[in-house]
Amino acid sequence: MAQMIVIYKTPKNPAAFDRHYFEFHAPLARQLPRLRKYETSRGPIISLYGAVEAHFVSTLHFDSLSDINSAFMSECGRACAADRQQLVPHANDVQMFLFDTLSLDGTDGFQVPGRFCSGDQDS
Amino acid sequence: MAQMIVIYKTPKNPAAFDRHYFEFHAPLARQLPRLRKYETSRGPIISLYGAVEAHFVSTLHFDSLSDINSAFMSECGRACAADRQQLVPHANDVQMFLFDTLSLDGTDGFQVPGRFCSGDQDS
Repeated sequence: MAQMIVIYKTPKNPAAFDRHYFEFHAPLARQLPRLRKYETSRGPIISLYGAVEAHFVSTLHFDSLSDINSAFMSECGRACAADRQQLVPHANDVQMFLFDTLSLDGTDGFQVPGRFCSGDQDS
Repeated sequence: MAQMIVIYKTPKNPAAFDRHYFEFHAPLARQLPRLRKYETSRGPIISLYGAVEAHFVSTLHFDSLSDINSAFMSECGRACAADRQQLVPHANDVQMFLFDTLSLDGTDGFQVPGRFCSGDQDS
């Protein structure tokens, strides 16, 4: 699998951002070809360490980086990019990360050594 | 659901970072109480717009922000925080974002208006 994580800095008008995002940008991005799953943050974001003060995070899941590239190149991808410029006029106010993913639950073959934190209860 | 996204800037010695992460940090974090899913990036990360040059991304999924807080406070959480300081000595070299999530696939009640990008094929 592959992901696109988008982190939006706190805008001058958060209410207008939210309205634009959920009324127009999300319905648009939801139609990207081969999009498998689409999640966003809900409510305030706690930013720690060297993190920018973030207002909103979205994660779009695809089968591969190649599918993300194809989605970007599609008519819908171009419309999303154009709308992103309306949503966030300054490119520095948004961080975007694209990458292949590895699941550490064992399905991708990652071997987890024996339990380390024996004092904790996972109930 | 709730997520913790951690974005690591490119370290001076990426090979040493990867070894430490997968041989020690991930097996430790994997044991956090009530961790539901654990994903990381695999291979290079494409950073766009205002994004820092990132080497590695991890996403830890929990049922709620309250569970993330409990995980942080646990014996395992404290061991993870201490190991994170070994992994990334400078706090500014890591961004961490914690937030509740909203799924836009309809299961959380988000209503998607009619198909917008009619010209694209999702085959």
